[in-house]
Amino acid sequence: MGKKIATVLTNGFEDSEYTEPAKAYKEAGHEVVVIGKEKGETITGEHGAKVTADASIADVKPDDFDALFIPGGFSPDQLRADDRFVAFTKAFMDADKGVFAICHGPQLLITADTLKGRHATGYKSIVQDLKNAGANFSDEEVVVCSNLVTSRTPDDIPAFNRESLKVLEKVTA
Amino acid sequence: MGKKIATVLTNGFEDSEYTEPAKAYKEAGHEVVVIGKEKGETITGEHGAKVTADASIADVKPDDFDALFIPGGFSPDQLRADDRFVAFTKAFMDADKGVFAICHGPQLLITADTLKGRHATGYKSIVQDLKNAGANFSDEEVVVCSNLVTSRTPDDIPAFNRESLKVLEKVTA
Repeated sequence: MGKKIATVLTNGFEDSEYTEPAKAYKEAGHEVVVIGKEKGETITGEHGAKVTADASIADVKPDDFDALFIPGGFSPDQLRADDRFVAFTKAFMDADKGVFAICHGPQLLITADTLKGRHATGYKSIVQDLKNAGANFSDEEVVVCSNLVTSRTPDDIPAFNRESLKVLEKVTA
Repeated sequence: MGKKIATVLTNGFEDSEYTEPAKAYKEAGHEVVVIGKEKGETITGEHGAKVTADASIADVKPDDFDALFIPGGFSPDQLRADDRFVAFTKAFMDADKGVFAICHGPQLLITADTLKGRHATGYKSIVQDLKNAGANFSDEEVVVCSNLVTSRTPDDIPAFNRESLKVLEKVTA
């Protein structure tokens, strides 16, 4: 049975880190809901991909979703300056729902203060931030820690998709 | 007597956070040297400002400068993925030279692991990173800690310029 995946996104996301996992999730029968600052806004990736927000962060609640997907690029750092996205993220981590974060995606997990003692990876520039946040960092293409799946770069997308699809099989809202 | 200020920069810097302090430093008789990945490269700000790199990070050494200036925006996070910029930054902090970082600029100080016990501020999105790095964070327009001057946003530029100019009066290479 398909699961419902909240995807938090704003301008400057790394294009393939949204498009490729979203395609894989949909092909496996899951629903991807893009959550932006405003419903209907056009969100542009750093290389020009355009995505329309299905919902505003003001109108969604974590209880309605089985998992959270955080693409990388320059999007997560901007989202974590908005307390609503931080609280939304924290709710998924606290409930041990599926959380899939790639590249700079774990920046939202850091600001939500949810990585203490968790095994994780991320893009090179945020490695010191991950360690300082109390994460057990590994330089691997994908790290799975309970229902938290993290990867480093677009090159890791196949492994990221494989492991997040496995988590989607078992999580429930 | 004018001081020599190393300015580390790459694409996506917040335009005014480079142009306004650089103008103030030059007007006060100091020299601003823009250091990029390649000498002569054109570096573009997030709002379109163009700056030519005076030197490559491969060809400079901290001993040649009195101070380091780190404008914000999306530039610092990219610079800290390059170990040469991280080592360059660490040398200025270790020598207690002038270090002026605004907005996301302190991200380089975090990756260089130089903020433990230091008083600092920065853009909202990096506050948790600053705290996790051991900094004593204050939500103020400018924070001065010995020769380290930090600010949060473009609105803080007047205070940032005022305090960094004071530090430039006293630092030496």
